[in-house]
Amino acid sequence: MNYPNKKENSQSSFINYSKRGMTLESDINASNKYYLDNDIALIYKKPTPIKVVKVDYNKRINTRITEAYYEVPSTTDYNGIYKGKYIDFEAKETKSKTSFTLNNIHKHQIVHLKKVLEHGGISFLIIRFTTIGKTFLIFTKDFISYINNNDRKSIPLTYIEEKGYLLKDGYNPIIDYIKILDNYIGDEL
Amino acid sequence: MNYPNKKENSQSSFINYSKRGMTLESDINASNKYYLDNDIALIYKKPTPIKVVKVDYNKRINTRITEAYYEVPSTTDYNGIYKGKYIDFEAKETKSKTSFTLNNIHKHQIVHLKKVLEHGGISFLIIRFTTIGKTFLIFTKDFISYINNNDRKSIPLTYIEEKGYLLKDGYNPIIDYIKILDNYIGDEL
Repeated sequence: MNYPNKKENSQSSFINYSKRGMTLESDINASNKYYLDNDIALIYKKPTPIKVVKVDYNKRINTRITEAYYEVPSTTDYNGIYKGKYIDFEAKETKSKTSFTLNNIHKHQIVHLKKVLEHGGISFLIIRFTTIGKTFLIFTKDFISYINNNDRKSIPLTYIEEKGYLLKDGYNPIIDYIKILDNYIGDEL
Repeated sequence: MNYPNKKENSQSSFINYSKRGMTLESDINASNKYYLDNDIALIYKKPTPIKVVKVDYNKRINTRITEAYYEVPSTTDYNGIYKGKYIDFEAKETKSKTSFTLNNIHKHQIVHLKKVLEHGGISFLIIRFTTIGKTFLIFTKDFISYINNNDRKSIPLTYIEEKGYLLKDGYNPIIDYIKILDNYIGDEL
């Protein structure tokens, strides 16, 4: 493996929760809206799962939830359909310049992405390295292959550059990840 | 059309919000768990969309949401993958003995189910008539066809019996709707 030896772990494990995923999320949402409006694909972000504990039914117009908690999602954030194919992915940002820490993803989300593959769907991660300003798509088979063959708790950027696909910023759609899937579907046929 | 002339509208438009969907929802969730555990299909219920307004970050362990509101869902409640195919459906209960009132479904949900069909996926409704204890699956093309050709704001049970598929209660899975899709996928091939 050709990845830097610099110790970046302490830096890469720092996560700014207040901003994490915001920009990448809004870019993906805007791209999904473009795909929807142009009848290219139907991809939606799933709502964040929230456990509602107390509700105030006295509000006549709109029921007010007065106590609730965030829950761990069972699956991934995004799924949908493209050319009849089931699409499923998770999107994450990292501040690291050298690797993507696997702690960023829940283990059962990785299991889910693998299951999608086994059931004949297309699943992947979209990872944005915010510090270097690069966004990649990496298919499940490729990052699972890395996890299975390495003890590291992070995937080096060099591996992602080698196996993944760089998603260049565009105008509309902002990140055209569907274009990558065309090649992938083409490979399968 | 061979549907009863009895005026059932006032009755069918009465909805018990506190119980609506609970039983059918739990039956479908249990069936989905069966499909998941047996590697038959991956179908999940999407979380209910909630708009969070106020959050108490002082709670160290688990962020408490102190003000939030239910939002109208953009899509349907359930989606996933079966034999590589994208699956998408909405499940509804009605107390009516004679018809399913279209007010039960948001118009943009019907548009979504139709779009899924156009993109090569499989979409349908699961409707339970709680008073007569019968549950049906009706594919999007069939209920859209009814809507396009009729002015009524409800689909008669007789039409659903004719075009839909009766889902008999089973033990495991409780409602085996995936079996119906087998025939449908078979028809397409």
